[in-house]
Amino acid sequence: MPSKESEAVRRHWVTARRGMVEPDAVQVDEEAWGDLTAEPREVDYVEVEAAGLPAMWVTPKRSAADRVLLCMHGGGFISGSIYTHRKLFGHLAKASGARALIFDYRLAPQHTHPAQVDDATAVYRWLLDQGLRGEQVVFTGDSAGGGLSISTQLRARDQGLPLPAGAMPFSPWVDMAADGETYDSNRDRDPFFHRESVRRFAGMFLGPGGDPRDPLASPVHADLAGLGPIYIQVGGDETLLGDAQRLAARARDSGVDVRMDVFPGMLHTFQMAAGRAPEADDAIRRMAAWVGARW
Amino acid sequence: MPSKESEAVRRHWVTARRGMVEPDAVQVDEEAWGDLTAEPREVDYVEVEAAGLPAMWVTPKRSAADRVLLCMHGGGFISGSIYTHRKLFGHLAKASGARALIFDYRLAPQHTHPAQVDDATAVYRWLLDQGLRGEQVVFTGDSAGGGLSISTQLRARDQGLPLPAGAMPFSPWVDMAADGETYDSNRDRDPFFHRESVRRFAGMFLGPGGDPRDPLASPVHADLAGLGPIYIQVGGDETLLGDAQRLAARARDSGVDVRMDVFPGMLHTFQMAAGRAPEADDAIRRMAAWVGARW
Repeated sequence: MPSKESEAVRRHWVTARRGMVEPDAVQVDEEAWGDLTAEPREVDYVEVEAAGLPAMWVTPKRSAADRVLLCMHGGGFISGSIYTHRKLFGHLAKASGARALIFDYRLAPQHTHPAQVDDATAVYRWLLDQGLRGEQVVFTGDSAGGGLSISTQLRARDQGLPLPAGAMPFSPWVDMAADGETYDSNRDRDPFFHRESVRRFAGMFLGPGGDPRDPLASPVHADLAGLGPIYIQVGGDETLLGDAQRLAARARDSGVDVRMDVFPGMLHTFQMAAGRAPEADDAIRRMAAWVGARW
Repeated sequence: MPSKESEAVRRHWVTARRGMVEPDAVQVDEEAWGDLTAEPREVDYVEVEAAGLPAMWVTPKRSAADRVLLCMHGGGFISGSIYTHRKLFGHLAKASGARALIFDYRLAPQHTHPAQVDDATAVYRWLLDQGLRGEQVVFTGDSAGGGLSISTQLRARDQGLPLPAGAMPFSPWVDMAADGETYDSNRDRDPFFHRESVRRFAGMFLGPGGDPRDPLASPVHADLAGLGPIYIQVGGDETLLGDAQRLAARARDSGVDVRMDVFPGMLHTFQMAAGRAPEADDAIRRMAAWVGARW
C-alpha cells in the first residue's frame, strides 16, 4: 500500500492523463510535476551554460566538489527541464554528498533522436573538460532520462570517452516500441503510461521513419558490454516495469554488474515525492548508498 | 473576477483552513504555499549565514549586484521560510533587476516579539556591513513580513542606521489587535484570515502579556515620520485590506510618500501565484516599476 504522501504521485498522473485526453480539462502546468517534491534545503542552485545548453549546478552544502551526478531529466523527451527536476536531483545529490549537474537537452518533436543523446554526450564531454575524470561521474535519470543515461554511455564508449563510474536509471524508458508485457499486466494500475500513448511519444522522439529498435533510442536492444555498473529502480505498478526488467536482463547477459529494485505499489518516477513520501525517501537513500560504493 | 490561475490561491487558503479547524483533515505541507509559484528561471539560489541566521541570496542573471531587496517572508510569524518564498522573491528580484536576500527569522511561539524585528534589523545591519548603502536597499515582505518591513525601519531609525530607499509591503499584517473593519466586511470572501484566528496568531507572536498596540508589533500605531517611500499592495477580498488602508493613512499623516494598490477580487498574498496567474504577474511588475524609480 502506498503511503498517503505517495498518493500525490498517482493524483499527478491521473490529472496529467485527464489534461491529455480531455481537451476541456484544466491543463497541467508542466512544472506541477516538480511540485511533488519538497525543497531539499541546504542545496544551492546556479545556472550555467554547459556545451552551449542551459544547465544548473546543484550543490549541497558540504558536498564533495569532485563527485558529480550527471542528471538526465525525464518527460518523454517532449517536456521536463532543469526546473521540474531541480529539487528531485537536489535530494539525490544531498543524500549522495555529491554535486549534481542538470541540463536541458533539446526536446522533441522539434528535435528528434539522436539530438538528445548528442546533447547529453556533449555535456558529459564538457564535464570531463572541467577536469573531472569519468570515474568521478555517475549518470542518473528518470524515465526518458533513464534511457538516456544508458544510451549516452553507449555513445561515450563508441567515441572512446572514459566511461562514468556507473549509472542509476529509475523508471527508465528504454523501449520505443513499447513491447513490454507490463503495458498489459499493469495497464489498470498505471493511470498514465498506456501503450498507445507511449508509442505516440516515441513517434515524436524518433521522427518520421525513425526506427523504434535503434539500439541508441531503445537501449533494451543495445549491446551493453563494457558498461560500468547499473542500478535500476522501478515502481511495481507502472507499465514501464517490463522495460526495467528487460534492461536488467540485457545488462546481465552483457556481463554488466546490475542491480534492480522494484518498489511494490509504486508508480512511474515515484521518487518525485522526495522529502514528502517515505517510499521516495527510501529510494533516494538506496541510490545514495549504491553510488557511495562506486566512488 | 480572479483568473482561473488565481483560483489556486483561494484553494490553498481553503485547504489551509480545513487543516486548521478539522483535526482529521490532511495537513497542508508548509511548503505547499510555495507550490503556488512557478519557477522564475534564470535565477540562482545560494544559502549563506547572515547575522547568524539561515539566509539565501537570490540572484537573477544579469541583475545589479549593488541593488538589494531585503525580503521578509510571511507566515504569521509562526511559519514560512526561505524555501516557501524562494520563487516568489525570485520573480520580484528578476523583474526588478536586483538581488534579493531572504532570511529565516526566529519563529513564534518559541520566540516572541521582538525577536523577529531584532533578527530583521541584524540582517539589515549585516547587509550594510557588506558595503551596501541604505539607499541601495529596499525592504519588502508579505503578510507578517510586510509588517516587519515597516517595524524594521522604525528600529533602524531609532538605532541611527541609514534608512533603506523604500519599502514594499504586500498584504501586510500590521495590527495585532485585528481591529480592522474589513475583518467583518470581507469575512465571507476571505477563506482563512478570520479575526479570531488572527488574534490567536497574534497571541503567539506577542507572548503572554504582550501588548497588541505596541507600535513595533503593530506599525499601524507607530509614528512613521521620517521613513522613506512605501508602496503597499493588498487584495480587495482579504480581511487584512483594512490593515493596509490604515497603514497607508498613517504613513500619509506622518508625511511619508505612500502609494497603495488594491487588487479587486484578490486574496491574501495572491502574488504567490507569480509566473502562473496574470494578477500576480501584474503585481510583481508594478512593484518592479516602483522600485526602479527609487534607485
